[in-house]
Amino acid sequence: MTPSPQTVRVGCYQLAPTIANPSYNLDRTRVAIAEAAERGAQLLVLPELAQSGYAFYDREEAHALSEPRDGPTLEAWARQAAKYQIIVVGGFCERLPDGQVANSSVLIEPDGRRTFYRKAHLWDRETQIFTPGSEPPPVVDTHLGRIGMMICYDLEFPEWVRLAALRGAQLLCAPVNWPDTSRPGFQRPAEVIRVQASASVNRLFVIACDRCGEERGVGWVGGSTLTDADGYVLKGGKRVGKKQLLLADIRLGQALDKQISDHNHVLADRRPALYHELLRD
Amino acid sequence: MTPSPQTVRVGCYQLAPTIANPSYNLDRTRVAIAEAAERGAQLLVLPELAQSGYAFYDREEAHALSEPRDGPTLEAWARQAAKYQIIVVGGFCERLPDGQVANSSVLIEPDGRRTFYRKAHLWDRETQIFTPGSEPPPVVDTHLGRIGMMICYDLEFPEWVRLAALRGAQLLCAPVNWPDTSRPGFQRPAEVIRVQASASVNRLFVIACDRCGEERGVGWVGGSTLTDADGYVLKGGKRVGKKQLLLADIRLGQALDKQISDHNHVLADRRPALYHELLRD
Repeated sequence: MTPSPQTVRVGCYQLAPTIANPSYNLDRTRVAIAEAAERGAQLLVLPELAQSGYAFYDREEAHALSEPRDGPTLEAWARQAAKYQIIVVGGFCERLPDGQVANSSVLIEPDGRRTFYRKAHLWDRETQIFTPGSEPPPVVDTHLGRIGMMICYDLEFPEWVRLAALRGAQLLCAPVNWPDTSRPGFQRPAEVIRVQASASVNRLFVIACDRCGEERGVGWVGGSTLTDADGYVLKGGKRVGKKQLLLADIRLGQALDKQISDHNHVLADRRPALYHELLRD
Repeated sequence: MTPSPQTVRVGCYQLAPTIANPSYNLDRTRVAIAEAAERGAQLLVLPELAQSGYAFYDREEAHALSEPRDGPTLEAWARQAAKYQIIVVGGFCERLPDGQVANSSVLIEPDGRRTFYRKAHLWDRETQIFTPGSEPPPVVDTHLGRIGMMICYDLEFPEWVRLAALRGAQLLCAPVNWPDTSRPGFQRPAEVIRVQASASVNRLFVIACDRCGEERGVGWVGGSTLTDADGYVLKGGKRVGKKQLLLADIRLGQALDKQISDHNHVLADRRPALYHELLRD
């Protein structure tokens, strides 16, 4: 199973990390990467905090479960990336100095290069646990194309996705843990809708890798989604309460074309001189 | 049919303006306002360029069909607004000096106050016809609540919707003419998805009033949409190729509450100090 030369096979693996069980999580993600690679994936996104689980009691527990950037989980992911020639994007609880922790993600290329990101917009109790990042979403020039990265609630800030697009991202990879809340059951979850809209207004592909598996009373949307650069769902986008590997063959080059009519270009049509109120505190 | 004291009845009238037939359009919109008012609407949105039609051959034709801000169409709409105590939002081709024209909209309150907006992001051949606006979307403090206004392609710039939200809009009214293009027929149109996402990330209600009726070979999505402040569709959101009056009773006060978890507020959680690249040309 090899994608055609013009396409790349990308995907995400929705699975159930287990809080306070890093060795289980490490095994689980290693198996996931291997399975995706065997099915031809050249890039795989894992959920937010896939290394540690999500529902920490407090900062101390998060710190105890955190890993540095060269910890055992990322070392193992890097070995898989090299072995299978696959780009791995996944979330982990990053150990910082002085008892601090960050909700981080890493993009690991087959040649071993690692790019890191720390979640800048923190969700709910995360504000009590994590130190927020203060760097824009990275965009990495990989052998497949330019790949951007952010985490979960970051996606609810169109400003943030726009930054990734302005930096040239053709594919945005977002590890997420979408907590379940009440919503009209018959409509597509708003989390998915926001991903679709972000893809559409920026003409880039988006992969959001959600999780499953209730954890300390928290349930999840289970709505992992792959969209095309027009914002339409290629795979996923539905509530699925169990593990799922979603794969799609995409032409990343399509995301270089920002022209949507004879006279329109989604980025050039912006009018930044009129947007100054966006920077006001 | 009177909405309960806590709610307001708002809506939009998807109809088919006819190019180069302003008296027909005037009659048609007058009937639409009356019909909506009789059904209890306190605010009605009409399509983009409802006064003139859309598919002009060139600027000269647009200028010939344009009206000043006190032209016959807006005078008639103002009389309806006063008679029925209804807020009217609609699009018109605005006559400017020196043969120029703008793709404009007006919000007319029952007391006669008029607020104007000129489309800032122009679509396709509009760039050859209209002079773009250079003012942010207005937000008007009406007796129903704070109402924002923009036009069609403006909605594809999340920056622009954010400006309206930062200015306090509880309901965003958008006259649109969504030209039909190829799309996966089984998925909700991207135009609707973008409206939903904008509502959701800003916690405001949105009404997008589309049109129907092929005009000089141009077809339309016919996807008029009313969303709630969570981004879910209340009415419309489907392709309907004919006229339709959509009405919903909404609690505009819900849009004042931007808190989405114990620790999250959709506007206060923004990190404007990190967004400066958005203003770069």
